[in-house]
Amino acid sequence: MAKKLCKQSQNFSEWYNGVVLEAQLADYSGVRGCMVIRPYGYELWENMQRVLDGMFKETGHQNAYFPLLIPESYLKKEAEHVEGFSPELAVVTHGGGKVLEEPLVIRPTSETIIWSMYRKWIMSHRDLPLLYNQWANVVRWEMRTRLFLRTTEFLWQEGHTAHATDSEAQEETMRMLGVYKTFAEEYMAVPVLVGVKSDAQKFAGAVRTYCIEAMMRDRKALQAGTSHNLGQNFAKAFDVTYQDADGSRQFVWATSWGVSTRLIGALVMTHGDDRGLIMPPKLAPIQVVFVPIYRSDDEKSAVLAQCQKLLGEAKAAGLRVHLDDRDQMRPGWKFAQWELKGVPLRIELGPRDLQKQQVTLVSRLGGQKTPLPTDGLAQLLLQKCDEFQDALFQRALEFREEHTYEVDDWADFKERIRQPEGFLNCHWDGTAETEAAIQEQTKATIRLIPLGDDAREGRCVYSGKPSSKRVLFAKAY
Amino acid sequence: MAKKLCKQSQNFSEWYNGVVLEAQLADYSGVRGCMVIRPYGYELWENMQRVLDGMFKETGHQNAYFPLLIPESYLKKEAEHVEGFSPELAVVTHGGGKVLEEPLVIRPTSETIIWSMYRKWIMSHRDLPLLYNQWANVVRWEMRTRLFLRTTEFLWQEGHTAHATDSEAQEETMRMLGVYKTFAEEYMAVPVLVGVKSDAQKFAGAVRTYCIEAMMRDRKALQAGTSHNLGQNFAKAFDVTYQDADGSRQFVWATSWGVSTRLIGALVMTHGDDRGLIMPPKLAPIQVVFVPIYRSDDEKSAVLAQCQKLLGEAKAAGLRVHLDDRDQMRPGWKFAQWELKGVPLRIELGPRDLQKQQVTLVSRLGGQKTPLPTDGLAQLLLQKCDEFQDALFQRALEFREEHTYEVDDWADFKERIRQPEGFLNCHWDGTAETEAAIQEQTKATIRLIPLGDDAREGRCVYSGKPSSKRVLFAKAY
Repeated sequence: MAKKLCKQSQNFSEWYNGVVLEAQLADYSGVRGCMVIRPYGYELWENMQRVLDGMFKETGHQNAYFPLLIPESYLKKEAEHVEGFSPELAVVTHGGGKVLEEPLVIRPTSETIIWSMYRKWIMSHRDLPLLYNQWANVVRWEMRTRLFLRTTEFLWQEGHTAHATDSEAQEETMRMLGVYKTFAEEYMAVPVLVGVKSDAQKFAGAVRTYCIEAMMRDRKALQAGTSHNLGQNFAKAFDVTYQDADGSRQFVWATSWGVSTRLIGALVMTHGDDRGLIMPPKLAPIQVVFVPIYRSDDEKSAVLAQCQKLLGEAKAAGLRVHLDDRDQMRPGWKFAQWELKGVPLRIELGPRDLQKQQVTLVSRLGGQKTPLPTDGLAQLLLQKCDEFQDALFQRALEFREEHTYEVDDWADFKERIRQPEGFLNCHWDGTAETEAAIQEQTKATIRLIPLGDDAREGRCVYSGKPSSKRVLFAKAY
Repeated sequence: MAKKLCKQSQNFSEWYNGVVLEAQLADYSGVRGCMVIRPYGYELWENMQRVLDGMFKETGHQNAYFPLLIPESYLKKEAEHVEGFSPELAVVTHGGGKVLEEPLVIRPTSETIIWSMYRKWIMSHRDLPLLYNQWANVVRWEMRTRLFLRTTEFLWQEGHTAHATDSEAQEETMRMLGVYKTFAEEYMAVPVLVGVKSDAQKFAGAVRTYCIEAMMRDRKALQAGTSHNLGQNFAKAFDVTYQDADGSRQFVWATSWGVSTRLIGALVMTHGDDRGLIMPPKLAPIQVVFVPIYRSDDEKSAVLAQCQKLLGEAKAAGLRVHLDDRDQMRPGWKFAQWELKGVPLRIELGPRDLQKQQVTLVSRLGGQKTPLPTDGLAQLLLQKCDEFQDALFQRALEFREEHTYEVDDWADFKERIRQPEGFLNCHWDGTAETEAAIQEQTKATIRLIPLGDDAREGRCVYSGKPSSKRVLFAKAY
C-alpha cells in the first residue's frame, strides 16, 4: 500500500520526491546521484522520445551514435567549454587492468567528440548541412542531485548540426527552439516562455543560448530545453572547414540543442496535485484505466466480460488502456492508486452500469463522475482525452499568468520573490554585476530575455539605470 | 567517390572493414576501440530495435533504465561474474575533481546493479515475475577490436527477469532464445543454429548459456545472441528472496539475455558480396531506390515528375524509398553506390520507360533487369520485397548447409578446419581437457551443444572416448 503523500503546500520538495517514488516513476540506486527509471517512468520517456524523434526526422535530422568516452585533450580544445564542464567530469583512469596513458572523461555533452568526427566528414559545401541527433546517456558530477531534475547520469537527446553560413545556423537554432516549444505545449501540456539567456547563463562554448522555461506549481522556473547557436567556436577548436563554391576554405557554423529526462520532472511539477501525478493524455502510458466493481462471482464475470469487450474496442481505436482486475484490492484503493499515477481517465463499471448499458467516467482533473453510454464509448473516450489535454494546458497557463508580475521597485522585488511568488518581469540594466547582485540577494536569476523587439524603455529594478526591455526573473530549479 | 572494395576471397577481413566504412555504417573514432555509428548504420539499428522491442513487449516485458556506473563492490558479490569481467573493466576513479572513495566501473553488463534493485522491489510471490529489459550502452575493454563485432563500447539490450521457480526461469530462458532465433531468421534473413554452450564458453555467473550461432561467408561462426539461465546465483549474491504462498522465504530465480550492435556485423558478413552489403528488406533503411535517367532538361523534368509520383505511392504503401536525384553524378556511379549500400531493389526510370508506362527493376540479388508496369507498382514492389527476403534467407541457408560436415576422424578435422572449411559436427567426450586441446591445436571451439535428445552414440573425434551426441565445432568471431 502506498504511503501517504506530503501535501504540496506543506513541503513541495518532499511532495515531489514522494510522488516520483510512490508512482514508481523512478527509485534511488546505490550509486551516488544515479537513479533507476522504473517501467512506468520509462514508458513515459519512450512516449516523449517517440514524439520528439518524429519531430526531429520531420525537420530533416538523422540519428547517429558517438562514443561515451572522450579523451581529456578534446575537451581542452575549446577554452570556455572545458572551463564550464571541468568541475562536473567523471574520469576513467584505468581500462583492462592498466592505467590509461590519457584519461578519458565520460561525456557530459558531445560537442567535442562529434566535432572531431565532423572534421573527417566535412570537406566541401556539398557535405553541408549535417543534421545529426543522438539519443544518449551523459554524466555530470552534480553536487546536489534530485530525481529526474538533476542526476549524475541522465538520458537525453543532443542535436549537433553543421552549416555553411551563420544565418543557416541561426535559423536551425530557432527552428529547434520552436520544436521544443511545440512539444512542451502540445504534448506535455506545459506552457513555456521562450527567450535568450544572459551571458552568465549561456552554455559553455555557445555564442547564444535560447531556452524554454516553464512555471512549476511551487512557482519556481524550470529550464526545460535549450538550443545553442555555437557560431564557429567548435569548428575553430577542431579545425573544421569546408571549401565553398568559390574554392576558398571557410570555418563551419554550428548549433546544438537538447532536452533530457528532466522533462519528466517538469511534467510532474507542472501538473501534479496533492493526490499525485496528472499525466497529459498524449504522453500518458495509460490513458484510461478500467476498474470493475462487483460483489458476487456472478457479478464479477458479467462485469469483467463487459470490461474486456470495451477495453478491446478502446485499444482498437488507438487508446492506451489498462484493466485493473486485481482481486485482492478494493475499488477505493485502486482509485487512489491510479490517481497517484496520474491516469487521466478512469472508467468504473459495476452491475448497475451494466444494467443501464453505461459506464461511469471519472476525470483525474476535477474528479466529477459522468455516466457514458457503452455504445460508441471508444470514440467518446478519444474526445475526452482531447478535452483533458486542452484543460490541462489551460490550467497550467492560468496558473502561470496568475503568478506573473511586472515589478519596478526593488523592495517589491525582494518581497515578491521571497515565497517565491512567481515570475517577475523587470527592467534590467544589462550588466553582469546587477545580475549577480540580484542573484546573491534573492537567489532569483534571469531566466530569459524575451525575443522580438517590443522594446519599452524603463529603469533597472535594481540599479535604476536605463533599460530597453523587461526580462524574466525567477527562482529556478 | 567510394574506394574500390577488396574482394571477399582475397581478404575477408579487409573486405569487411571496407564495406562498413564505405557504406557509411560506421567510422573509427579517436577513442581506442570505440566506433561512431553513422546515420545509415544507426537507422539499421533502429529498425532492429523497433522489431525486437515489439517482440519483447509481446512476450510481456517492460523497459526500464539502470545506472551506467556500478560500485566495484557489487561486481565482487558474485565470484564467477567478477572473475569473468574483471580483465575488461573501465574504471572511474575521479568525479567532480575528487578521488572517489570507491571506484565505479562502467557497466560491462548489468546483472549486479539490477539485482541490487530487485532486492528492494521483490518481497512477495505477488511481485514475481519481474520481466524487465534495458536498451543501453556497455563498455568492455577488449584487446583487439573490430567495427561492430567487438568494440570497447557497444549498444545492446539486456533482459533481466526474476521468477518464483526454476522451471519458470528455464521457460523464460528458452522463450527468449526462441525470440532471437525468430528475429535472426525472419527479419535478418540469417539462419541460426540454437544450442547450449559448454561450461568453458558460458556466461560468467550463469548456470547455462544458450545461444544462436550463424555462419558468415568466410565460413566462420558468429554468436549472434545469448540467453542465460542464471539459477539463484545473483539472488544469493544480492540476498533477493520472496515469501511464497506458505509464508517461507525462497531465493529468486533469474535469467538474462542480450543481443547487440554485433548483429549488424552478422548481417554484413552473412549476406555481403564483392559489390558490398545486401540488406534484408524487412530491416533495410532503404528498400527501394529510384534512379532517374535523362539527358535533356525536358527529359529530366518528365522523368523526375514520374519518379515523384511513384515514390509517393510506394511511401503510402509503407515502403521505405529514396529518390537519388543528385545532378552531379552519373547513373552508373549511383548504381554502384546503392549496391555498395545493399539496397535490395533499384528502380531505373528513363524516357523509354516513361513512354512504355513502365520502370526497370534491378534486384541486388542477381542483378537481372525486369520491366514492371507503373500501374500498381507499389503492390508489386511489396511482393518483390517479400520474395527478396525469402531468397536471401534461402541463399544463406544453402551456403551454411554446403559448408557443414560430419567429421569423425581427427586428421580430417584438422584438414577441414584449416581453411576454415565451415561447421563441423563431431562427437566430443564431454571433457574440458579435450575441448581445450582441440582449441589449442586448431583454434576451433565448441559453438554449441544441440538441444533435444536425438542422442546418437559415437566416439570423440579427438580422444576416441565414448560420446552420446555430436556437437558443433567451428572457428568463430
